[in-house]
Amino acid sequence: MKHLILMTATALLALPAAATPPETTLPGADGPTIQPDRSITFKLKAPDAHTVQVAGGDGLGAGPFNMTKGVDGIWTVTTPPAVPGFHYYWFVLDGIRMSDPASRTYIGYNLETSGVEVPEPGADYYGLRDVPHGAVRDQYYYSKLTGRWRHAVVYTPPGYEQNLKTRYPVLYLQHGSGEDETGWTRQGKAQFILDNQLAAGHAKPMIVVMDRGYAEQDGGIPKPNTLQELRTVFSAFEDVYIHELIPTIDSAYRTIPDREHRAMAGLSMGGMQTMFIALHHTDTFSYIANLSGPIVPDMTGERPYAQAFSDPVDPKTSYEGVFADPAAFNRKIKLLWMGVGTAEPAQFHGITRAARALKDSGVRVVYFESEGTAHEWQTWRRDLNDLAPRLFR
Amino acid sequence: MKHLILMTATALLALPAAATPPETTLPGADGPTIQPDRSITFKLKAPDAHTVQVAGGDGLGAGPFNMTKGVDGIWTVTTPPAVPGFHYYWFVLDGIRMSDPASRTYIGYNLETSGVEVPEPGADYYGLRDVPHGAVRDQYYYSKLTGRWRHAVVYTPPGYEQNLKTRYPVLYLQHGSGEDETGWTRQGKAQFILDNQLAAGHAKPMIVVMDRGYAEQDGGIPKPNTLQELRTVFSAFEDVYIHELIPTIDSAYRTIPDREHRAMAGLSMGGMQTMFIALHHTDTFSYIANLSGPIVPDMTGERPYAQAFSDPVDPKTSYEGVFADPAAFNRKIKLLWMGVGTAEPAQFHGITRAARALKDSGVRVVYFESEGTAHEWQTWRRDLNDLAPRLFR
Repeated sequence: MKHLILMTATALLALPAAATPPETTLPGADGPTIQPDRSITFKLKAPDAHTVQVAGGDGLGAGPFNMTKGVDGIWTVTTPPAVPGFHYYWFVLDGIRMSDPASRTYIGYNLETSGVEVPEPGADYYGLRDVPHGAVRDQYYYSKLTGRWRHAVVYTPPGYEQNLKTRYPVLYLQHGSGEDETGWTRQGKAQFILDNQLAAGHAKPMIVVMDRGYAEQDGGIPKPNTLQELRTVFSAFEDVYIHELIPTIDSAYRTIPDREHRAMAGLSMGGMQTMFIALHHTDTFSYIANLSGPIVPDMTGERPYAQAFSDPVDPKTSYEGVFADPAAFNRKIKLLWMGVGTAEPAQFHGITRAARALKDSGVRVVYFESEGTAHEWQTWRRDLNDLAPRLFR
Repeated sequence: MKHLILMTATALLALPAAATPPETTLPGADGPTIQPDRSITFKLKAPDAHTVQVAGGDGLGAGPFNMTKGVDGIWTVTTPPAVPGFHYYWFVLDGIRMSDPASRTYIGYNLETSGVEVPEPGADYYGLRDVPHGAVRDQYYYSKLTGRWRHAVVYTPPGYEQNLKTRYPVLYLQHGSGEDETGWTRQGKAQFILDNQLAAGHAKPMIVVMDRGYAEQDGGIPKPNTLQELRTVFSAFEDVYIHELIPTIDSAYRTIPDREHRAMAGLSMGGMQTMFIALHHTDTFSYIANLSGPIVPDMTGERPYAQAFSDPVDPKTSYEGVFADPAAFNRKIKLLWMGVGTAEPAQFHGITRAARALKDSGVRVVYFESEGTAHEWQTWRRDLNDLAPRLFR
């Protein structure tokens, strides 16, 4: 009970009184439980295993955590209090990584990976609430550039199917590395964030397009190493985006097909892609948002690209000089938004430094900080919640 | 090469020349491969495991199959030629059931369960083809009866968003036990079957509603045992269906809200539910289809309900006497459809016998047989492909 003593009465009221199963648990399954202090008890029945651990996203704490076998053959461990939000996790059973059979899985780390949703007291902006709901739908399109069918997820706002003479702006919204086009709705709850912002009248009705962030050909997901290889991979995706995805969306939906009504945003790898694609195509996008995306000021050369994440931004030359004339940039781009969580040190350093350098040079930047959250979805939910009302104003 | 000799030249042409990864493999993952004879090679890296097996749906053969460890720590086995279609599968590693980290998972057996898609040569009716595509979308609705939000998947046909004065008939389509509302689109590919039938002009444009087949309350998925308990569970679902789901759909979509334009169909448990709900509500539904659903002629008493699956149908008394006056039934119900695969012995016996008894009594029944397929999704894809063109004529 020690932790309870440290809490204020207000916070206490918002917390459940006992351990509860998270919404990520499969119906009827005996999975993890979340304690009132947000510590999580994980369990796995494995009578014959020699060692079982649980590990996962940063917000779970500094795992992996060793589990202990009970007399019933069930291994358990209670982790330290977790950061609120969605965390990936997995078991390591005698050295083998496996999903939790009791939990829903989500595409993360390029695998079906278990997830655990830890409620944040008082935060209902991403909840399924009794407000008008937009539609989330599948969009298939054949990509000649890659020789494959592609799949995007599209959100249309409430009223889209009634207000047939209305055309809408479009936010293109990208997932992170190892995830896919389902991430923003399944893990991120983007549709509920938009529903709630729209119901409150805080955001303009918009279409949101969540595409698959890989221009895959038959070799599967590309795995670049050097900066130049990253550029090649991103360029292939850029071509699909500009020449195939956007025309598909403008043809299939009632969009306002001009730059003033088109935004691009992405998280982590998707943030890098946004900086790469949208800054190349300022005639296509006028709102640009980087959510926890590494800053890669110069995408050329043979250095491993991950080493460039700490490179400083020189407003005169970085990103191919797009910021060199701040006044011209500010006239053309209606919003350059950068956000990062305070508990994601690598990205925090790069993004805060880049935002400061750009601001100091005269570029208008909106900087957003998510207090206490890591390189995980709670950061990006908060980001979207801050970003959405700023779009298409 | 022995199996190749037995094949005709035509069949041979339709098969791939070498082992290929199935579409169910995660992009970039090193998962199962399918040989030209439809035998499947499964693999799992587990250097420290003592025993590894693979097991799964009936169409994979009579597993579980013992796997053999190679010098690289990778366990492999090649199963006998599989039945075409979608099969659930899992590994058993030192006694623990686990998903294949290389494959997509699907809700089956109330778990996230790996799937492997085995192509059927020449069968493109469920393929993603270059035809107009309907939209698959999420429908949330708050259920006062259960005190919970519910989620259904809804297919609207191509043209739904253009032909705004058009109203559409609705097919209510239910999944099986252990599955959920995502089964018919993810495993079943219902959206592509409809797209292709509509493009060919063989089916009437319709909305398809795929709801979650459990009226869950806080206790999770109900687990009835006796016939009477099954009735109680189905009755709760019936109430949600009739009093909440159908009004929600008739309000949110441009339906034709009358019995002449409403069908109900379901597979396995969903077939039982269809017979239970739709035969109770012939004022609500006029098209009724049972896909591999056990025949339970009398849902009363304390017997375990699974023992009733072999009970004979007495047209005078079974199903609360709804068939007692065949002429009246035939006037009221436009289609009573029953389908079963020849490789699902338990259901085959019950459904063929029920269809014969009903026909002999004068009830008009359309009976459909899926050659060589088991209690699996290939049966139900074929079922839907046969059923869809018969609806709303």
